[in-house]
Amino acid sequence: MRSNAASPIETLVRQLAGLPGLGSRSARRIALHLLQRKDDKMLPLAFALQDAAEKIKNCMSCGNLDMSTPCHICADDTRDLQQICIVSQVSDLWAIERTGAYRGRYFVLGGLLSALDGIGPDDLGIERLLAKLAEERTQEVILALSATVNGQSTAHYIADQIAGVPDLSAIQISRLAHGVPVGGELDYLDEGTIATALKKRTA
Amino acid sequence: MRSNAASPIETLVRQLAGLPGLGSRSARRIALHLLQRKDDKMLPLAFALQDAAEKIKNCMSCGNLDMSTPCHICADDTRDLQQICIVSQVSDLWAIERTGAYRGRYFVLGGLLSALDGIGPDDLGIERLLAKLAEERTQEVILALSATVNGQSTAHYIADQIAGVPDLSAIQISRLAHGVPVGGELDYLDEGTIATALKKRTA
Repeated sequence: MRSNAASPIETLVRQLAGLPGLGSRSARRIALHLLQRKDDKMLPLAFALQDAAEKIKNCMSCGNLDMSTPCHICADDTRDLQQICIVSQVSDLWAIERTGAYRGRYFVLGGLLSALDGIGPDDLGIERLLAKLAEERTQEVILALSATVNGQSTAHYIADQIAGVPDLSAIQISRLAHGVPVGGELDYLDEGTIATALKKRTA
Repeated sequence: MRSNAASPIETLVRQLAGLPGLGSRSARRIALHLLQRKDDKMLPLAFALQDAAEKIKNCMSCGNLDMSTPCHICADDTRDLQQICIVSQVSDLWAIERTGAYRGRYFVLGGLLSALDGIGPDDLGIERLLAKLAEERTQEVILALSATVNGQSTAHYIADQIAGVPDLSAIQISRLAHGVPVGGELDYLDEGTIATALKKRTA
């Protein structure tokens, strides 16, 4: 690689290295791989990036990423309008959609409350969530947030906020069940998960 | 993600998942990261890919990737024309260039001999290498190939071929030294490396 900083290879490697999970070594590997397959991989990827950047928008109603706003989930009349599942990221929404087990709608916070990172209720659009719950006469809120300190304190905060609004106090609030992952080996699980799974054992 | 296969997000995720070192999970993570940073990351990456695809060519002389052919290394008159370092991949060339310890030129094979993968001498341009060595009156060939079975058999084959051409028989052939990596802990090294480092110990 030339020392001249304007080389298109270096620019490309630097940009790839800035992606989550990639470093300069994996970025160089990907750049080389692409440079050896310009027509069947490199240009199609450039086009796919441009195309997605142009066409994908944030849904004004739930925060999902889709080609239209409201997104195809919010616009789907066959889904249950009275159930709202609150997730931290669009990737969590995708993960739940892949299960096919949920037919309600979503609200994407875009993060979790974190004093350390300076993320407060305003950053997560919780005012907007409360307005949406009132407007859509939601009956059930599922807090599908991760089982981490930030996830659980965010869930707690949202449950508190909902309980504090007289109009919303009838909403049923639930959380994801804790337990042994399906297919998971006990040997590899932490004690907290096993203890919870024991306590919540089912017949 | 919608089930419709034509969604730009799915197209993008599929293309990212096909890159070396990435799977569908990391590809989704990268796609989401980019969709949240369209202007400062996604579009610049699309442009960098297109720009590099258009501008970067394979050097006709050594096989390096650069904006011009011959590449800036082959075109650099201050480098030693009489030393040629043979590497398997452009990434190896880059790795050696980063050391700043080599001032000769290169020849990129583009792979290693492998009976298993059906890669023979013709695939690596060894005829072209021999012609280049004769034409440039090379005096030293450094076989910088990896210390694997394929690397060493390729090195052996090239050394044999060079020795078999009367015009080239004066060329001095060397290989990278084996030993303990700089900064490497003995504890983590295999016995073969330690044995070699002992045998080749220096005063």
